[in-house]
Amino acid sequence: MEAYLDNSATTRTAKEVVDIMTEAMLDNYGNPSSKHMYGVNAEKYVKDAAKIIAGVLKCQEKEILFTSGGTESNNTVIIGGAMANRRRGKHVIVSSVEHSSVKEPFRYLAENGFDVTYLPVDKDGIINPEDVKKALRDDTILVSVMMVNNEIGAVEPVEELGSIVHEFNKDIIFHVDAIQSFGKYRIIPKKMNIDALSVSGHKIHGPKGTGFLYMRDKVKIKPLILGGGQQKGMRSGTENVPGIAGLGMAVKLAYTDFDEKIARMRQIKNEFVEGVSRIEGTQINGRTDETSAPHIVSVSFPGVRAEVLLHALEERGIYVSSGSACSSNRPELSSTLQAIGLDRSLLDSTLRFSFCYETTSEEIQYTLEELARLLPVLRRYTAH
Amino acid sequence: MEAYLDNSATTRTAKEVVDIMTEAMLDNYGNPSSKHMYGVNAEKYVKDAAKIIAGVLKCQEKEILFTSGGTESNNTVIIGGAMANRRRGKHVIVSSVEHSSVKEPFRYLAENGFDVTYLPVDKDGIINPEDVKKALRDDTILVSVMMVNNEIGAVEPVEELGSIVHEFNKDIIFHVDAIQSFGKYRIIPKKMNIDALSVSGHKIHGPKGTGFLYMRDKVKIKPLILGGGQQKGMRSGTENVPGIAGLGMAVKLAYTDFDEKIARMRQIKNEFVEGVSRIEGTQINGRTDETSAPHIVSVSFPGVRAEVLLHALEERGIYVSSGSACSSNRPELSSTLQAIGLDRSLLDSTLRFSFCYETTSEEIQYTLEELARLLPVLRRYTAH
Repeated sequence: MEAYLDNSATTRTAKEVVDIMTEAMLDNYGNPSSKHMYGVNAEKYVKDAAKIIAGVLKCQEKEILFTSGGTESNNTVIIGGAMANRRRGKHVIVSSVEHSSVKEPFRYLAENGFDVTYLPVDKDGIINPEDVKKALRDDTILVSVMMVNNEIGAVEPVEELGSIVHEFNKDIIFHVDAIQSFGKYRIIPKKMNIDALSVSGHKIHGPKGTGFLYMRDKVKIKPLILGGGQQKGMRSGTENVPGIAGLGMAVKLAYTDFDEKIARMRQIKNEFVEGVSRIEGTQINGRTDETSAPHIVSVSFPGVRAEVLLHALEERGIYVSSGSACSSNRPELSSTLQAIGLDRSLLDSTLRFSFCYETTSEEIQYTLEELARLLPVLRRYTAH
Repeated sequence: MEAYLDNSATTRTAKEVVDIMTEAMLDNYGNPSSKHMYGVNAEKYVKDAAKIIAGVLKCQEKEILFTSGGTESNNTVIIGGAMANRRRGKHVIVSSVEHSSVKEPFRYLAENGFDVTYLPVDKDGIINPEDVKKALRDDTILVSVMMVNNEIGAVEPVEELGSIVHEFNKDIIFHVDAIQSFGKYRIIPKKMNIDALSVSGHKIHGPKGTGFLYMRDKVKIKPLILGGGQQKGMRSGTENVPGIAGLGMAVKLAYTDFDEKIARMRQIKNEFVEGVSRIEGTQINGRTDETSAPHIVSVSFPGVRAEVLLHALEERGIYVSSGSACSSNRPELSSTLQAIGLDRSLLDSTLRFSFCYETTSEEIQYTLEELARLLPVLRRYTAH
C-alpha cells in the first residue's frame, strides 16, 4: 500500500494536464510571437488558459500574468511592486508566518531602504486584524499576507485584512500569497479586496515551472525579467505554452465539481485528525475545524525525531513532510511553528500531512495504523 | 506540403523529450526538496540533466543553473552579475546586435548608474576584436556578446574576444548568449574563455519554459529570484523537474551524431542559399559560407513587404519569420539589420529562414519554387 500525503509539497500532475501539454509540444509547437499559423495556434493555448483563470477569479484576462511558478509570482509583485511605487513611500507590511518566497523578497526590500513591519500571529497562526490597523502608515505601499499557511493550514482573514488596508488607503497594494489556497477556496479578488494574488501550478496537479500572478489592472510593478516584451512587457521571455496550457487545464479540473472535491478533502482531513488524536503522544498544531484549510494537518510527536519518523513511514510507503518541503534545502527550524509559540522541544518532532482530492480513506486508515504501530517502537529506541 | 522554416523562433519538441517529461509528471512527480523517495527520484532527473549538460560543456555539474529560459538566463547573469560586482566598477560592454533579452537588461543597468559601451559590427554583423580592446577599462566588470546572431546567423569570434577580455583582466565576467548557437556548435566554455553562457531549451527541440545558465564557479551573481534557496540559493523556486528532464534529453539528442546533424543542416542551408540567389530580386544579408551559422539565412526582397510575403508563404504551408519572432510583439525595426547598415528600404522587406536537423531537401525545394512563383506576382500588385 502507498499513501502520498505530501500534496502541499507538490501534487501528481493530472493526466489531462499531460495530454494538453503533449499536444502543445508535438503538434502546436509554435512561438506565440510568430506571425503565422503556428504562432496563432500557440497563442490560443495562452489565451484559453487566461480565460479559464479569469473565469474562476471573475477578473479580466489581461489581469493574469503567467510566471515560472509561485516563487516568481511572489518576487514579481513584492519586489516589482515596491520598486514601482517607492516614490509614494517605503513602508511595507508582511506577516511573520510567510513562505520563504515571500520572506526573502521582503528581506531584500529591508536591505534596500524599505521599512518592513512584521505582523505577529496567535497560537493558531492567525493574524489579528487590529495589528494590521496599527501597522498601517501614510507611507505604506504594500501589504502581503498568505491565505493558507503552508505548514499548519491556518487560514488568514484576508478579506477583512484587505478591507482594512483599502479603507485606510486604496492605493496600497494588498497582495495575497494563494499558493496553498487556490484550488481549495473560491477566491474572487475584487470582492475580497485583493489587488494581487500569487498561484503555483504544481500544487494543484498542474505542471512544475508554471504559475500566475493576478494583478488588478490599477497595480503598477516594475518587471523582474526584461527582454522581448512578451505579456505586455511585464514578463519577457517566450511564453511557456505547454506549461501554461497545462496550468489552465489544472485550474479547470480544480474548479470542476469543486464543492464535492473540497467536501471529500475535508472528510479525509477529519478522519485523519480524529484518528491521530486517538493515538497516544500526539499533538495537532493549529485549528482543525472548518476554519482551517481542508488539506493540511501539522502533528507533533513528542519524543520522536521528525526525520526518523518520516523515514520509518517512508519504508511503509507513506510519504509526508517535515516542515515545509519547499524550503527544506535549508535545514533551518520552521518559522511558522516558532511564531505560533510551539514548545522548542517539538520543533524537530513535527510532521506535515497534506491531502488532495484523490487521497482515499484507505490511505488515511493505513497511515493511522502505521503511526500507531511505529510510534511506541521509535520512542523505545530514542536516547534519553 | 508543409515547410516549417522558423526554427530559430522555436522548434518542435522531440518525442523523446515529451516522453521523459510525461514520466516525470505522472510517475516521479515528487518535489526535489522532499526528503522521501519521491523527492529523491525527482532530484535524480535534475542531477541527470546537469550531468548531460556538464558532459557536453566539459564543465562541473555545479556550474549549471536551471532557469525558466534563455531570457531569464540572460537577465540573471547581466543584472545579477553587474549588481554583485559593482564595487569593482560600473562599466559594462555589449554588442549592438544583441537580442532584446540582453539589450533590455543592459538598458536597465544604464538607467541604474552603469556606464554601457556598445560595440559596433561590420556589414556582416561581426564584431572587430580591436573594438573590444579599445572599449576595456579598469572599471569594466562585464562583457556580453552573442555567439550566433538570431537574425542573420553571424558568428562572433567569441573565443578571441574572451581571450582579449581575460588578458586585460581575468575578473571581468565574459558572458556569451548562446541561445542560437548551443546545439549547433561544440562549446567548451573553459577552453573558449567564457565565464557565463545562456541557453534556451525550446530552440533545440526541448521544452519551452526551460533553459540554463552556465557560470564558471568563480563567477559571483546576486540571484534574481529569491525564496526557498533551491539551486544553492542562486535561483529559488521548486525546480521544474519535467522541464529540466526534457532539457537534458534535448541536449543529449542535439549532441548525438552531432557532426552528421550539422553537416545535414549546412547542406540544407547551402541548397537554400544557392536556390534563393538564383531567384531574381533577392539579396542575402550577411555571410553564407562556413563562417556563418548552419541554420539561419536572412533574405531581403526589394519591392515586397515582408509581412505580405510571409502570409503568402503561409498560405502555401511555409512558415518563416519577419525579423526575429521572439520580439515581434513590438513592431520595431530590427536593430541587427540597421546595425549592419542595410538600406532602410529593405528593413521591412526582409525574412528569416531558419532550419533544424529535421529540415528536408524537399521542404527547401518546395519553398524555393513557391518563392520564385510568388515574388513576381506580389511585385506586380505592389503599389508604386
